Order: sequence, then structure tokens, then C-alpha cells
Amino acid sequence: MRSLAILDSTLREGEQFIKTFFTLEQRVQIARWLDRLGVTFIELPSPIASPETRDSIQAICALGLQSHIVTHVRCVEADVLAALETNVYGLNLFFGTSTELRSNSHGRRIEQIVQQAVPLIQLIRTTGRYVRFSAEDAFRSDLVDLLTIFDAVVEAGVQRIGLPDTVGIATPRQVEQLVSLVASRYPGVGIEFHGHNDTGCAIANAIAAFEAGADCLDVTVMGIGERNGIASLSGIISQLYIHYPALLARYDLTQLMELEQYVAECLNINIPYNMPITAPSAFTHRAGVHTKAVLHNPNAYEILNPTDFGLARHVDIGSRFTGRYAVG
Amino acid sequence: MRSLAILDSTLREGEQFIKTFFTLEQRVQIARWLDRLGVTFIELPSPIASPETRDSIQAICALGLQSHIVTHVRCVEADVLAALETNVYGLNLFFGTSTELRSNSHGRRIEQIVQQAVPLIQLIRTTGRYVRFSAEDAFRSDLVDLLTIFDAVVEAGVQRIGLPDTVGIATPRQVEQLVSLVASRYPGVGIEFHGHNDTGCAIANAIAAFEAGADCLDVTVMGIGERNGIASLSGIISQLYIHYPALLARYDLTQLMELEQYVAECLNINIPYNMPITAPSAFTHRAGVHTKAVLHNPNAYEILNPTDFGLARHVDIGSRFTGRYAVG
Ligand SMILES: O=C(O)CCC(=O)C(=O)O
Ligand SMILES: O=C(O)CCC(=O)C(=O)O
Ligand SMILES: [Cu+2]
Ligand SMILES: [Cu+2]
Repeated sequence: MRSLAILDSTLREGEQFIKTFFTLEQRVQIARWLDRLGVTFIELPSPIASPETRDSIQAICALGLQSHIVTHVRCVEADVLAALETNVYGLNLFFGTSTELRSNSHGRRIEQIVQQAVPLIQLIRTTGRYVRFSAEDAFRSDLVDLLTIFDAVVEAGVQRIGLPDTVGIATPRQVEQLVSLVASRYPGVGIEFHGHNDTGCAIANAIAAFEAGADCLDVTVMGIGERNGIASLSGIISQLYIHYPALLARYDLTQLMELEQYVAECLNINIPYNMPITAPSAFTHRAGVHTKAVLHNPNAYEILNPTDFGLARHVDIGSRFTGRYAVG
Repeated sequence: MRSLAILDSTLREGEQFIKTFFTLEQRVQIARWLDRLGVTFIELPSPIASPETRDSIQAICALGLQSHIVTHVRCVEADVLAALETNVYGLNLFFGTSTELRSNSHGRRIEQIVQQAVPLIQLIRTTGRYVRFSAEDAFRSDLVDLLTIFDAVVEAGVQRIGLPDTVGIATPRQVEQLVSLVASRYPGVGIEFHGHNDTGCAIANAIAAFEAGADCLDVTVMGIGERNGIASLSGIISQLYIHYPALLARYDLTQLMELEQYVAECLNINIPYNMPITAPSAFTHRAGVHTKAVLHNPNAYEILNPTDFGLARHVDIGSRFTGRYAVG
């Protein structure tokens, strides 16, 4: 069986959501919960962002969790050196590779990106830490540019390369194509996918990436992040539950609901009704045609078993929708 | 260019959402708004559900909208006769065809479904109305059962057949396969897709259906519906905007935000942060790396132009995230 790591970025990408202002205590609590649930990686911001961020990283590293703690850092010396002064398991480097980001963000040419990244990766490898290199905005990047950079960083020793759909533009088919191409070119290296939800396909894109060869998928609790966010933890879990249940063996799925409720409380929002598994309405049946059948056998209109998540089904028999149709 | 009809089912599927209790006045208001936006079909519940539903149907038919008004009715004589007494443009028939629904919902065998559906379709056709037949739970239905039924209803004269992913189990690839198969078997008939969001793929599945040959996609405002709902109107619009902009020529996209806000108010909810286009955060940039680039050129982190939807971008330069990173 192929393996799949889930990387939770609630404490990094999720902190870029407009409603997020976590305290240190909340960050620690969320990290513990993610660990109990069983995610492989927990991603944190760069320690250079602020002294407070640095303290949070050290506090979370000190918990001694099973989940690997990685810090998300720009591919510049100051960030890497600051990261190496913390106790993180590894560094998730990123560098914008599309024309849009090269000209509007950092102004570097492809050769400059390579020249900047390679020695930093080599340095990190000498310390024995895990290192991933991600081509920010990979899906608007020229393929030659992308592969030129990946050839160099793979040669320099990265353990994983990242393909983020930074602007949420990719379709499942495009994800499948790029991931399979990269997977067959770099057979010894892991592949991570990170997909934004601007056009509503983040979950489908992540699963397409896994099916095409990615071995690490980025998520956040409730999918929070920049703009419309990224793939949600519960969405990816719902997909694996249906299509690859063996990959969930190491997870304690009963933790999901409480974790999500806790994060929702921190943000002062409700869990959206469209969240797989954890939405208040996820296991509520309302139309009469539905309630009648579900009372007979839940399998009629349910593909996930709520009890596997410590949840209960609700049949809305008080609704006006159950009147005539329920008899029919 | 291929054509694509959008069917909005906010007033039918959307009424199955646990928070929905529309008044007649609200239904009329929503129908007008959908018409101004430019959707091809507006789907309403069966008139047999209640006298109040019947009155709403007649009130909306009386508006003389450009959008075609269809009623969603069980494939039984009483429902069809009641529908034919209203002024609707057409009837959207449905019948559960999976083993799960046949044994737990209506108890009919495949031959019985055919025997029940064919004369009703012929009857509807004699009145000159539009008729669609949908195989409820198509993605858990046996292919032979499905095609046996479709062969018969196509022969009986339906103008469109529906392939709903009633339980939200399908992947984009499965949708692509089933839709292409059905599209090549019934070249003279339209194909409608309706996808639930239980595993977070409703939007991706709808687009996969279109790409495989479907010519009608079901949506609701904000994706509201049973359980986690279905594909959202704004999600499908965001996809078309990026990948098939010519298909949006007939739409007035500046209506979308106000329509959605109105429905959110009716339901007493906020528009979820994960909604493409209409989420309060959809065009808000927060991380320093992002804000810096977006101030230079919005294209750096934006693939949809907010002004096309009558909206504005927001650069969150007051956030702590713009500190160090923004300088970098
Ligand atoms: O480092 C990565 O792979 C992802 C960075 C990010 O948040 C993005 O590109 O959207
Ligand atoms: O009639 C249809 O095609 C859709 C009915 C429905 O809401 C469903 O199957 O989820
Ligand atoms: Cu991101
Ligand atoms: Cu439905």
C-alpha cells in the first residue's frame, strides 16, 4: 500500500485567514489535538516573523509530539538560520516560480532562484534536518522553469518537493498531469500538494494529486487560509474514508469534531454547513423521501457512518418536508 | 461553442437545507434575482408537497421570467397530474435507481420503474411540456439497470436525462466516465448533473460532467441543500470564468453578490469564508509576502477580477502578518 502523509497547516496557512488571531495557548492546544488525531506534519510559520512566533515554535517543539513539526520559511539565509536555531524537525522552503510572482514579488530570475536555494538546502542537509522545497504558484509556472529548479534542488538533496496551487486555478486533470510528470522524473523524492480553493476544487485537486503520485497533502482545520482557504482536513478525511480507508488506520477519527469545534471557537465562527463530516447538517436528513428511507436504512442516503467519528445522525421528522412526501 | 444551462435549485434542493424556511415573498424575490443573473432553469418543489408550495409555483410562473420554471416531481401519477395543473415550463422527474434506494425507499424493481415512468413521460410530452428524467443515486446504480431505464425513457421522449450523485460519493474521474458513456449512447438528449458535497467534490464533479458532455449543471445559492449541500452557484461561475469565459456572456455577474447576501439574510447565516467569489475574504490578502506583491500587481495572487463582480479587493496591511515578511 502507498503511504500518505497529511500536513496540517492550520497554524501557518490558517493564520493567514482574516479571522485568525491564535494565542500561544491556543496554538499549543491545536498542535496537541492534531497529534492525537494523527497527522504526520504540523506546519508553523517562520520564526523570523516575530519573537512571539519563535516562542510558539519552541513551545510546540517542546511538547514532544509524534507529529513532525516543520517551519514554513522563505528561501533566504536569514529565515533558514533562524529556523535552524529552533528545535523543528524540518524546514519547508518556498520560492515563487511563476512569472507573476517572479516579477511582482521577489524579482529573481530562475538562475538566481537556483543559486539562492541550492546552498541553503545543502546547509540544512548538513544539520540532518528534513527539508522540502516548494515552487510557489507551480500551476502558473513555465514547465521548463519548474523542472530546472526541481532538478537543482533534488540534486542538492531535498527530501520532498512541493507543488502548490497558490491561486486556486488548477483543475483535477491539470493536477494529475503535473504531479505524474514530476513523480516520474524524481522517483526518489516525495511530492507534496497544497491547493487553494478560489474556484472550489481544493479537495478534488488534492485527491487527484495523491492518485497521481503525491505522498503528502496539505490541509487546515475547516480549510481556513488566505482568501477562500485550502483543502479542509475533514474533506480529505472524508475522501480517504470512502476511497482509501486503509490510509486512515493510524488516525483517531473521534478527535476530528472536537478539534474543529475548538478552532471554530477560537475564530468565533460556526463550522460551515458545507464541511464534510463536521457540519451540523452533515448527518441531518430533511426531505420526506430521504427521512423515510433513512429511518429504514441510513445507508440509503449516507455514505459515511457518523458513529465512526463519534457523531450521531439526525432525522428531521418535525419538518414540513416530511408531510406528504413521507407518506408517498 | 458548446452550450451549458445552469439550473438553480435553491428553491427546491436549497429548501431541504436545515436552516431554510423561505416565505412566498422571499421565493419570488430569489426567482427574480436568479432571472436577472441569467440562469436557464429555476427548479421548484412538487406542487403536491403542500398548497403553499403550489401557490409559490404559480406566483413564480406568473412573473413571466426569461428563466424556465421547472418543478421537481416524483415519477408518480399524482405528482405529474398536479404539476400539469400549474403553469410550469417543464417537469423534472426523478426515480431512485440504486439498490440502496430501491430497497429502502420505494421498493420498485427496474421493470416497474420503466412501466411507471414511460406512460407518464408520454403523457407529459403530449402536453408539450419539457420533461427530464433523473436516475436518483445514479453513481451507486448498476450500469445495466441505469441504461435499461434510460433506453426506455429516451425512447419515450425525454429531452434530458439526469445523473445525480445523490450521496456525494463520486470522484471527478467517475463522473467523467459515466457522463461520457451516457453522452455517447444518447446523442440526441441533454444530460444534467447534480452533485452533493459530502466528500467536498461537488464543484469539481460538476465541471468534470460538463467536460464529459453534460449540458446542464445543478447549483444552489451558496450550495445549500440536504446534508452538506451541492455545488454552489458562485463555485460554478468561478470555474466558468477561468476555464470557459464565453459561457458566461449571457450572465449579469454583478447580481451574484447581492443575491447571495439576500439568501444569507433569509437563512440568518453568513456567507461562508470558503465560497468562491462571494466570501468576505475572497479578495482579501493578508500574509506580508502576498500583500506586498498584490499592491504591486493584483494578478500576483488573484485569478478572478473582483470588479467583474462589482466587488473590491482588500489588502490587510494592518495585520501583524505584514510586518517582517512585507519587507523581505
Ligand atoms: O509552501 C507551499 O508549498 C505552500 C505555500 C502557500 O501557502 C501557497 O503557495 O499557497
Ligand atoms: O432530480 C435530480 O436529478 C436530483 C435529485 C436530488 O436532489 C438528488 O438526487 O440529490
Ligand atoms: Cu497557501
Ligand atoms: Cu440533491
